[in-house]
Amino acid sequence: MSTRFSDRLAGAVGALSPVCVGLDPVLESLPDVVRARHHEPTRAIADFCKGVLDVVRGIAPAVKIQSACFERYGSAGFGVMEGVVAHARDLGLVVIWDAKRGDISTTGAHYAAAANRLGAHAVTVNAYMGESAITPFLDAGLGVFALARTSNPDSDAVQSHALRDGRSVAAMVGELIARVGEKHLGACGMSDLGAVVGATKAGDAAVMRAAMPRQVFLIPGYGAQGGTAEDIRAMLTPDGGGVLVTASRSVLYPKECEGEWHDRVRTAAQAFAREIATVVKPGS
Amino acid sequence: MSTRFSDRLAGAVGALSPVCVGLDPVLESLPDVVRARHHEPTRAIADFCKGVLDVVRGIAPAVKIQSACFERYGSAGFGVMEGVVAHARDLGLVVIWDAKRGDISTTGAHYAAAANRLGAHAVTVNAYMGESAITPFLDAGLGVFALARTSNPDSDAVQSHALRDGRSVAAMVGELIARVGEKHLGACGMSDLGAVVGATKAGDAAVMRAAMPRQVFLIPGYGAQGGTAEDIRAMLTPDGGGVLVTASRSVLYPKECEGEWHDRVRTAAQAFAREIATVVKPGS
Repeated sequence: MSTRFSDRLAGAVGALSPVCVGLDPVLESLPDVVRARHHEPTRAIADFCKGVLDVVRGIAPAVKIQSACFERYGSAGFGVMEGVVAHARDLGLVVIWDAKRGDISTTGAHYAAAANRLGAHAVTVNAYMGESAITPFLDAGLGVFALARTSNPDSDAVQSHALRDGRSVAAMVGELIARVGEKHLGACGMSDLGAVVGATKAGDAAVMRAAMPRQVFLIPGYGAQGGTAEDIRAMLTPDGGGVLVTASRSVLYPKECEGEWHDRVRTAAQAFAREIATVVKPGS
Repeated sequence: MSTRFSDRLAGAVGALSPVCVGLDPVLESLPDVVRARHHEPTRAIADFCKGVLDVVRGIAPAVKIQSACFERYGSAGFGVMEGVVAHARDLGLVVIWDAKRGDISTTGAHYAAAANRLGAHAVTVNAYMGESAITPFLDAGLGVFALARTSNPDSDAVQSHALRDGRSVAAMVGELIARVGEKHLGACGMSDLGAVVGATKAGDAAVMRAAMPRQVFLIPGYGAQGGTAEDIRAMLTPDGGGVLVTASRSVLYPKECEGEWHDRVRTAAQAFAREIATVVKPGS
C-alpha cells in the first residue's frame, strides 16, 4: 500500500508494457448498443468505461481518466468518475487523473486531497505557477505528471520561446520539474514527479530528456495526432525506458476493427501495446 | 440573458465597486456555530457559503468560487458547489469559477460545458498550453481570466525569465492573452478575456498593463499576501478602471472584528470595498 508512485508504475509497466489507455468518454462516440441501453448519459458513460477497463486490464498497466469528460455532467458526472476510478483500482490498474490542476499551497493541497479521495495514484498538473503548484501533490503521496511540452500545435506560442540564456520555455520548465523531482526518487531510479511531453514535439525530445533524466514522460499525441514510433524512441532514457505512451480515441473508438465493441477495443489496445513494445524495451 | 461577460461585469462593478469576494471554505476555519450545527463537513460548508453570499450581496458585485475547496469532498462537494453557485446567481452576483482549468480543444470544450452547467459566468484558466486552452471557454460564451502573473513568490521561477526578445515570460503570455481577447470585446471596451495578475507583483504592473490594455485584471494577493493600494493603482487602465480586486480569507475569517459571524463578514467586506474604492474610481 505504501509503494511510492514511481516504483508502482515501474513494476506495472515491467509486467506488461509502457502504455496507458486514456478514458475520454464522449456520449456521441459511444457504441450504439451502450447508448441504446441507457437514458442517462452518465450511466452510458459509466457502463462504457467499466467495460473498457475490464478489456484493457492485462494489456495496459495504466489508465488515464479525463476529468473534463465527467465534470461536464456536474456532480453526477463526478460521481460516475469516482465509480470508474474505484473499478480501475479493483482491477489493479495504475490510475492517472488527467485533471491538469494547477494551484498553489493550501489550494493545491485541497486538489491533492481531491485526487486521493478519488483514489488516483497520480495526477496531471500545470506548473506555470511554479514549484508550489507541484509540491502539494507530491507531499500528499501522489505521483505527478507536470506539463512540460504539450502535443497541441499552438503550444509553441508559449513553450517554444527562447530565453535569453538560450533555453526554451519548455526546457526551463523541464529543468524546474527535474529539480523538484530530485527529492522524490523511487528505488527504480525514476522520480514520482514525471512530465507530459507530446509525441508531436519530437524535435525537442533530446533537449527534454537531457533536462529531465529522472522523469517518466507521459506521452500523448502518438498515432492519431501524428507522433511516430521514431518520435517515442527519441524520448527514451539511455536504458530504453522512462516513457508511458498514452492513447485514447484510437483505442476507445477504433475505426478499422470489425465486431462487437469489447472485441474491437481489445484488438485496438493489443495493437497499440504491440506497436509500443517494438519501440520500448525497458532494461534492454 | 445574452449580455456578454465583459459588459455584465462592467455594469455590476459600476453599480458597486471593483471587488470580488473569494469563497475558499475550509472546514477548520468556519465559525464554531456553523460547525456545531452540522455533522457533515459539506453541509457546514454549504451553510457557511450561503450565509456569506447573503451578506456580501450589495457590497461586492462578484464572487470567486474556489473549486478545490469543494472538490476535496468529491461528488458530494461538487454538488454543494452547484448549490452555492445557484444561490449566488439567484442573488444577482457575478460568479467566477476559480478552477484554473487548462486543456485544449475538445477537452477544453468539456470543461467549458462544466462551467456553463455549473452556472458560472466566468472561469480562471491556465494558458501554458496556448491559445487553444483559452478559446473553448470564450466560444462557449464564458468570461475567462487567464493566469498571466500569479501572486505566489515562487512564480518568478517560471514567469520572470527574460526571453531573448527582452520580454518576460509573463509579458509574453500577457500579449498572447491580449491578442486572443481582441476578438471578444464588449461594448464597455474591455474583453471577455481578462487576466490574473497578482497584487504582489506590482513591479511588473506597468508592463502587464501595457501588454493587456483591454483586459480586466483579476487581482489576488491584496492585503494578507502583502499587496497594497499603491500596487493596485499601478494596474489601472488610463481611465482608472480595469481591475477586479479579490479577497478571500481576510473577508471570510476576519481576525479583528467582534460579534456574530455574519456581522463580522459584513464589516470585513465593507472595509475591503471601501479601501478599494479609495484607489479605483472607474470613469474618473
